[in-house]
Amino acid sequence: MSTNVIILAAGKGTRMRSTLPKVLQPLAGRPLLGHVIETAKKLNAANIITIYGHGGNLVQQAFAQENVEWVEQAEQLGTGHAVKVTLPVLPTDGVSLILSGDVPCITEATLKKLLQASAETGIGIVTLTVDDATGYGRIVRKNGEIQAIVEHKDANDEQRKIKEFNTGIYCVNNAKLHEWLPKLSNENAQGEYYLTDIIAMAIADGLSVASVEPELAFEVEGVNDRMQLATLEREFQNHQAKKLMQQGVHLIDPARFDLRGHLSVGQDVRIDINVIIEGDCEFGDHVEIGAGCVIKNSKIAAGTKVQPYSIFDNAIVGKNAQIGPFARLRPGAKLANEVHIGNFVEVKNSSIGLGSKANHFTYLGDAEVGAGSNIGAGTITCNYDGANKFKTIIGDSAFIGSNSSLVAPVNIGNGATVGAGSVITRDVAENSLAFERSKQVAKENYQRPEKVKK
Amino acid sequence: MSTNVIILAAGKGTRMRSTLPKVLQPLAGRPLLGHVIETAKKLNAANIITIYGHGGNLVQQAFAQENVEWVEQAEQLGTGHAVKVTLPVLPTDGVSLILSGDVPCITEATLKKLLQASAETGIGIVTLTVDDATGYGRIVRKNGEIQAIVEHKDANDEQRKIKEFNTGIYCVNNAKLHEWLPKLSNENAQGEYYLTDIIAMAIADGLSVASVEPELAFEVEGVNDRMQLATLEREFQNHQAKKLMQQGVHLIDPARFDLRGHLSVGQDVRIDINVIIEGDCEFGDHVEIGAGCVIKNSKIAAGTKVQPYSIFDNAIVGKNAQIGPFARLRPGAKLANEVHIGNFVEVKNSSIGLGSKANHFTYLGDAEVGAGSNIGAGTITCNYDGANKFKTIIGDSAFIGSNSSLVAPVNIGNGATVGAGSVITRDVAENSLAFERSKQVAKENYQRPEKVKK
Amino acid sequence: MSTNVIILAAGKGTRMRSTLPKVLQPLAGRPLLGHVIETAKKLNAANIITIYGHGGNLVQQAFAQENVEWVEQAEQLGTGHAVKVTLPVLPTDGVSLILSGDVPCITEATLKKLLQASAETGIGIVTLTVDDATGYGRIVRKNGEIQAIVEHKDANDEQRKIKEFNTGIYCVNNAKLHEWLPKLSNENAQGEYYLTDIIAMAIADGLSVASVEPELAFEVEGVNDRMQLATLEREFQNHQAKKLMQQGVHLIDPARFDLRGHLSVGQDVRIDINVIIEGDCEFGDHVEIGAGCVIKNSKIAAGTKVQPYSIFDNAIVGKNAQIGPFARLRPGAKLANEVHIGNFVEVKNSSIGLGSKANHFTYLGDAEVGAGSNIGAGTITCNYDGANKFKTIIGDSAFIGSNSSLVAPVNIGNGATVGAGSVITRDVAENSLAFERSKQVAKENYQRPEKVKK
Repeated sequence: MSTNVIILAAGKGTRMRSTLPKVLQPLAGRPLLGHVIETAKKLNAANIITIYGHGGNLVQQAFAQENVEWVEQAEQLGTGHAVKVTLPVLPTDGVSLILSGDVPCITEATLKKLLQASAETGIGIVTLTVDDATGYGRIVRKNGEIQAIVEHKDANDEQRKIKEFNTGIYCVNNAKLHEWLPKLSNENAQGEYYLTDIIAMAIADGLSVASVEPELAFEVEGVNDRMQLATLEREFQNHQAKKLMQQGVHLIDPARFDLRGHLSVGQDVRIDINVIIEGDCEFGDHVEIGAGCVIKNSKIAAGTKVQPYSIFDNAIVGKNAQIGPFARLRPGAKLANEVHIGNFVEVKNSSIGLGSKANHFTYLGDAEVGAGSNIGAGTITCNYDGANKFKTIIGDSAFIGSNSSLVAPVNIGNGATVGAGSVITRDVAENSLAFERSKQVAKENYQRPEKVKK
Repeated sequence: MSTNVIILAAGKGTRMRSTLPKVLQPLAGRPLLGHVIETAKKLNAANIITIYGHGGNLVQQAFAQENVEWVEQAEQLGTGHAVKVTLPVLPTDGVSLILSGDVPCITEATLKKLLQASAETGIGIVTLTVDDATGYGRIVRKNGEIQAIVEHKDANDEQRKIKEFNTGIYCVNNAKLHEWLPKLSNENAQGEYYLTDIIAMAIADGLSVASVEPELAFEVEGVNDRMQLATLEREFQNHQAKKLMQQGVHLIDPARFDLRGHLSVGQDVRIDINVIIEGDCEFGDHVEIGAGCVIKNSKIAAGTKVQPYSIFDNAIVGKNAQIGPFARLRPGAKLANEVHIGNFVEVKNSSIGLGSKANHFTYLGDAEVGAGSNIGAGTITCNYDGANKFKTIIGDSAFIGSNSSLVAPVNIGNGATVGAGSVITRDVAENSLAFERSKQVAKENYQRPEKVKK
Repeated sequence: MSTNVIILAAGKGTRMRSTLPKVLQPLAGRPLLGHVIETAKKLNAANIITIYGHGGNLVQQAFAQENVEWVEQAEQLGTGHAVKVTLPVLPTDGVSLILSGDVPCITEATLKKLLQASAETGIGIVTLTVDDATGYGRIVRKNGEIQAIVEHKDANDEQRKIKEFNTGIYCVNNAKLHEWLPKLSNENAQGEYYLTDIIAMAIADGLSVASVEPELAFEVEGVNDRMQLATLEREFQNHQAKKLMQQGVHLIDPARFDLRGHLSVGQDVRIDINVIIEGDCEFGDHVEIGAGCVIKNSKIAAGTKVQPYSIFDNAIVGKNAQIGPFARLRPGAKLANEVHIGNFVEVKNSSIGLGSKANHFTYLGDAEVGAGSNIGAGTITCNYDGANKFKTIIGDSAFIGSNSSLVAPVNIGNGATVGAGSVITRDVAENSLAFERSKQVAKENYQRPEKVKK
């Protein structure tokens, strides 16, 4: 039996006060809707039908690479209407999970439980039990069986004490959706078609309505304004932090850790305060990340220590390297084992060989550095002539003096030495010394400039 | 009817363990008393009478530009005594709001409600209802009318259960203050004159005592030690963060956001973790501020992205600029649209034209850079000769090679090129190439220094 | 009567998922066991007997300098067994405090109270009263006297309501330990020897069991997984932050402050958000530390302001200095009063005299700088020739032009001036000007490189 996922994503989200449609607001660096699509994909959904409305073009563009079937809800006439517009593309067999694009944290596990619970009944919902369910549609049960969902405003005093409510996540046989949705009525105060009404139809048809609760309450939290988004961001981050700690990561302060993507870790990884991880990252055993680092789409091999305030973007770092503080590895930085990159050093699109060091104020761009070389403080690879970019090749065991400018394209041979302050425009042969320097001049009793009186 | 504001600001604040008088301790970067004066000004107070005592000179100096009437309370003989010393300068008509210099968060809105509520009765107070009011003076009511304020130590068991207490913020007709304050007695255990006693006098006179509650409890919180100051700082920051989120700002973590001043924002501004905003700042639509930035007294126009750990102080940045990471804009930095300022770049008292770039390790001080110019890595404007500062003028479409030193005063013409590593002491003409360089020398089979054995 | 301390430190800590034995996991930068040993030393323990097991070599190495008597527990057969293995080295007189290596925050004060309370009875325990003691061994009392400790699983309904539980910290006369421990039995469900059983023996012997409660609950919290470690880290940090605030430190956000060692402070020290203090540090009066600084083993004298994101390691800074932002002081940095170290400046093993300045992009390594000197932007001391390190000596009132390279060993005399961009390889005499520079060359109508079409 095939599973479809239907995602309601047509809302504007006025209270976000944004030009972005609500489902594109990011949670942990990914649009709300992206989280839901990701979960749908984990469920191997036969198709993912997404109902768009406000800002539909932007929404579709954002997920252009995803295999999503887009259905437009031109007018927003209620949740029941939203699902109804999918009927033309909805198979008549199989089941559908009905999710919300602004309820991003629902898990695969909860939805699998829902699918299982609904398999027999043909309809099931996710409910949540809380201390105070004020405002929500209460689950009225008799002998454990769901009798009705009563909206807060329609509930009597007894019903308002009910702590279990409908989260708006459903699993329904497609045949039933084809049968029920056309019958929905908008004869109510709001003039809207409510999806909830299919529960009454199911019960009227003599069906039993299955229900499951999520493991964690934040799975069913929706986002309507910036405060709710910020709250959910923290809950999601805490959840991720806890999962990493269960894997053995030493997070110095889980409340000051942000993972916006995916991190896979070896053993005894230590992450200090205020680190941000973005995209896909991989840290080997005993990797240590200092305070305030921002690491994006990077691999860091075992034993490497990254000191505070280092920023990585699409970098690959070998084992037992020492990086930072204040180092910046930009896309294409590829560091071999035991490389040292020190403070105020920027590496872009460059490979650096085993054990080579650039400890201070250096820009390595479009460079290839061999093993065991030492790049002095203030060295700059002049890789750009204002129009084109060129490569700097430095061999093994080279020594580049401080404040050197290496004007690419240029080749510094193995074992070569460059004198401090040199502008190197021609290749330097193996084991040779190159320098570019004038004679040092001295003028005695030099009269310093004096402060001009204004 | 004119409104006066009387602020009690004479306390020493021994528990702060500070050389600074308590009312000068900063909350969100502004002295406690400054917050109260700011609120008083919003109420268009006819005059702001501030009672000083401990550290009075420091207090008066800190607010020298404010239109405040200072009254000394030489001895601290109680709150009633403090207000009594203002009588010589207090008008006999109008009303007075009596505030505390160490209760900084009281809002204009609450005080306006208090003024309104007190208009008929001639006297009103701000009260707060909490679960446990232990220690505070309880509000004893009969048929809703305030009958008395009973101090905790004098309260019987029944009264101690009362959850409403006096916050010490009053609104009183000045005529009444002139009548009541001279009658205050210090015949009590502490030998102090209590302002609270005027409530009993009012009731004895047959007056009704009005009362209002603040919208948020933190408005009436006082500060007596560093822990309370830290707690109130967080409450105030959370309140500010919430207001920004209601305006549509995407704060990634409101608990890690510090606003020490005022921020006005366009739409869809995004602020990452641990950003500090100081003074007056203005961010246009879609501005993004990366983690850990410190932005002070700066304007950033629409579409500009600031990467992590950038520090701005009195800077103006145009639209769609890209700044950071690790950029520092110091006072007088004025960047046009689409300017790129990269890592480890410092800009001081310099203007940079449309689309110009300084992407790495550059110091631009006292410079004027035109449009479309490229400032190479390691370029330094040598603006200081040890005594005086001079300007560097760079035209449009110039290209400054890496590691150049531009010795000011110096002028680099439009379209000019400076070779890498040059020290430029003379002007460079339009469209010309300038360089300062020796011949590159090579010595083959160079014998490297060897490690000296110790 | 001599006091022994017995520390149980043999556990593996499987749930930490670490290669490190549990007692070596760091809390506030120090191994859990290190905290307990530190507390034992404060009590002037006659000897500190530590029971090791899993990872015993690592544990002993970590505390090689401590005066600890190590006893191996080859098999982990329960807490009673652990203490029993110490009997061969345990004196027969005196008393023993029995502590756990994974309960790191127990304080000297609580243990002194325990010693005092146990002095008469010969046995005492630390208990804690909480709202819900589910899972713990309950303290059953009659007329205030401890009757029994009943494990949760053995407790009846009435006993399960008891809110006081055994924390596993004991004080026992050594004579009694020698008497009781050999009698412990492992005839129970787990087949383990439980230390708790000595309480029953004491009561059977007609002894009264003394008890004390810790001042703060976190003192008796144990660590079994990363979540508990993170929670305890925050509790410990909050506790430390509170102690500093009580001393008058202005912590802008105590929840974003990490002290991993010891900090002694003068008056009116202000510490902004996200500062990390490591090792032993000392801040004088009015020192201000900006956001995100990491300060390790450093002394900072009165009036010095450190701007954000500065990193100190084994540095000494004089009075009224100005450091940062983005400054890095490495081991051996010794700054006199009024020194200015600006952005992107690194100082290593160098002394800098009164009022000297290095404001931008400078590397001072193995240097001695006199008073009143100005080190221009981009200056680099070339202290390393690839094999050896040499010193750079700069006198008083020297002026080093920007982008200079000072090739050590080299001596710049008092009052000397170095021209911008110079590579200085020979000494510069007092009051002389030295420069190394070619003639500036101009080529008119220079044809810029053009973008190569690909």
